[in-house]
Amino acid sequence: MTAQPNESQPGRPGRALPDTQRGMRRRNLSRVLHAVGAEGPLSRAGVASRIGLTRAAVSTLVDELIRSGLLEELGPERPSRVGRPGWALALSTHGPAGIGAEVGVDHLAVCAVDLRGTVRSRAVRYGSNRGRSPESVIERLTGLVRRVVAEAEAEGLWPAGLAVAVPGLVARDARTVVRAPNLDWHDTDLAALFPSDVPLTVDNEANFGALAELWLGDGTPSDFLHVSAEIGIGGAVVVDGRLLRGTRGFAGELGHVPVWPDGPECPCGGHGCLEQYAGEKAVLRAAGLEPGEDRVGVLAGRAAEGDENVRRALREAGTALGIALTGAVNLLDPEAVVVGGALAAVAPWLLPSLREELSRRTAGPACPVSASELGPQGPLLGAAHSVIRGVLDDPATVAERA
Amino acid sequence: MTAQPNESQPGRPGRALPDTQRGMRRRNLSRVLHAVGAEGPLSRAGVASRIGLTRAAVSTLVDELIRSGLLEELGPERPSRVGRPGWALALSTHGPAGIGAEVGVDHLAVCAVDLRGTVRSRAVRYGSNRGRSPESVIERLTGLVRRVVAEAEAEGLWPAGLAVAVPGLVARDARTVVRAPNLDWHDTDLAALFPSDVPLTVDNEANFGALAELWLGDGTPSDFLHVSAEIGIGGAVVVDGRLLRGTRGFAGELGHVPVWPDGPECPCGGHGCLEQYAGEKAVLRAAGLEPGEDRVGVLAGRAAEGDENVRRALREAGTALGIALTGAVNLLDPEAVVVGGALAAVAPWLLPSLREELSRRTAGPACPVSASELGPQGPLLGAAHSVIRGVLDDPATVAERA
Repeated sequence: MTAQPNESQPGRPGRALPDTQRGMRRRNLSRVLHAVGAEGPLSRAGVASRIGLTRAAVSTLVDELIRSGLLEELGPERPSRVGRPGWALALSTHGPAGIGAEVGVDHLAVCAVDLRGTVRSRAVRYGSNRGRSPESVIERLTGLVRRVVAEAEAEGLWPAGLAVAVPGLVARDARTVVRAPNLDWHDTDLAALFPSDVPLTVDNEANFGALAELWLGDGTPSDFLHVSAEIGIGGAVVVDGRLLRGTRGFAGELGHVPVWPDGPECPCGGHGCLEQYAGEKAVLRAAGLEPGEDRVGVLAGRAAEGDENVRRALREAGTALGIALTGAVNLLDPEAVVVGGALAAVAPWLLPSLREELSRRTAGPACPVSASELGPQGPLLGAAHSVIRGVLDDPATVAERA
Repeated sequence: MTAQPNESQPGRPGRALPDTQRGMRRRNLSRVLHAVGAEGPLSRAGVASRIGLTRAAVSTLVDELIRSGLLEELGPERPSRVGRPGWALALSTHGPAGIGAEVGVDHLAVCAVDLRGTVRSRAVRYGSNRGRSPESVIERLTGLVRRVVAEAEAEGLWPAGLAVAVPGLVARDARTVVRAPNLDWHDTDLAALFPSDVPLTVDNEANFGALAELWLGDGTPSDFLHVSAEIGIGGAVVVDGRLLRGTRGFAGELGHVPVWPDGPECPCGGHGCLEQYAGEKAVLRAAGLEPGEDRVGVLAGRAAEGDENVRRALREAGTALGIALTGAVNLLDPEAVVVGGALAAVAPWLLPSLREELSRRTAGPACPVSASELGPQGPLLGAAHSVIRGVLDDPATVAERA
């Protein structure tokens, strides 16, 4: 996914290149940026040899990218290199920033990431959003966004887009929250509530978490199933390096896969859904703990101390996850399962029973299951990076706005 | 999927076109064929206006396609049309044929389909293949293939490829049956057993069934989940008009999704898998019937006569399918579920409980579930048509072999 749909943007006024020529220029701008991003710092000659264009063509593209603030020149390359030294190019640390935001059930978070992927500013506000109106939650979130943007601007950055992660189902329009049961939001058009003048994208937190895993994870394959949790349990499916979105945009819903079909009733209308066994509330209840702040931290702490009730509750949650994942792995045949979000913090006590259940229920070698190293930061980072990816994939659009 | 990987085929000897030019010629040959296939009969001028090439360019392409036996001229178009009458072109009925074959647990089937999609020859042999060696099964199948090919050749057709549907998991090499539990085959390289001198593709029967649904079904959407059954229960996932194959080629396995996790042990090693409730053996047992020939026909007959035991068994199988499909629909968010294979014959008694279960377990409007009109013919037709699709998508390869 990209943060901004670019195709509908008009070209720069007065510059009426034919479609194919303009398309080629846009693609080449992106290739230059990706080359510098992946292997930089690089000289113009270094870029030219990597992407197979002439030095002159690359210089024109580089000049445009420098003018738009997407590339910066670091100074002459080390003289030890062969030939006349060039000026090393790097992705700008004073150019566009991706603004990521997260609406959690119990917190709000915002961060700004620069083109190199460095988090430059961050703000978090704790407090329950459950049952609060979308208007008041977005008002608070807007306050945090303003603060983070102001800090980023003070460092010379400017916001290229805002991507918001929510714990619910988002329509394919990338702005409407169709259903967020733990917030009690329904058919909420977030774009209408945001005073933002930058392009806005809304997506499910598990989707952004999966993208973060794909882009930032260590050795994450391009086909995997991402399981994420905050209060509910979300999932996301990545196939060939792309999110599987589904007809309505709802693909990846793992929380309401039936585990024990005659089990307790679930607010979704079903019975015995995964959330009834591995959702936070269910695990806390099984562990004999009361809901409260930083519940997952409490669970992890107690489990580390050897609290047998907590460990048993997490083992049982792992078993339920293993049953639900057996069906998912059979259907999707992914290369790996990555467990992220809040679940990552309790992975040492959750994963053994999960792996055992999955392994004994699937023929052949079991699908590897690992815990995300990004943990609860995944969705926020994925959101911010999705904006940056959008810029790297089509720099022409922001160059035209710069 | 295409029946033949074409990219590795060398170009016609002595014709050293640059890659891009040759690629463009290949694409244009395909566009001409698709235009005639979708809207024919068409004159050369009609083709030219539809695909946006000059009349002269189209004539060159058409001449090549006629020489290779892929197009034929029907005679002058109706004089009532405006302008000089052209000769109407149609897909050849004397050109390449797609040979489809199916290894069922209790039967073997082969058919030949011409470029227009008409079945021109067909042969079936009943008798259990369970526990027989792959060598002896493929020997019998080869006999049927020879008979069907001879009949097709007697009508002026020639085999462009052979596609074989099997009730098991097939590796991504499209030749190795990794596991077919109901045949007791493991890691069987079918390509090594076939004396065939035409390109061979092997795939899971549910995958070919899903492709048949996609290509031949009435109003089948491009995102759907296909459920198929013979003795076991298979599944296939189509996303954006393409099969989701999975890392190892095993995606779509629905038969071993846990339904009641503490249920009866399954040969796969799991417990309470879907096949334990909705597989043919389980349904026959629940209905109080003995295994025998044409079991599904017997079930359908008894259900139609009002046999309450049979109806209850099918209702319960529908419920189990509904539970397994709840998880699948949550994960994939397909536009529709299509129930095919042998299950289609008992759809009237299976689908009501399936739909009810799916609907009460999924929030929002339930995913529509329908029975395939192709029924048990799906996999065989899908196999034969996959060869034809391969020809239409890249006619240059067969033109070079013709």
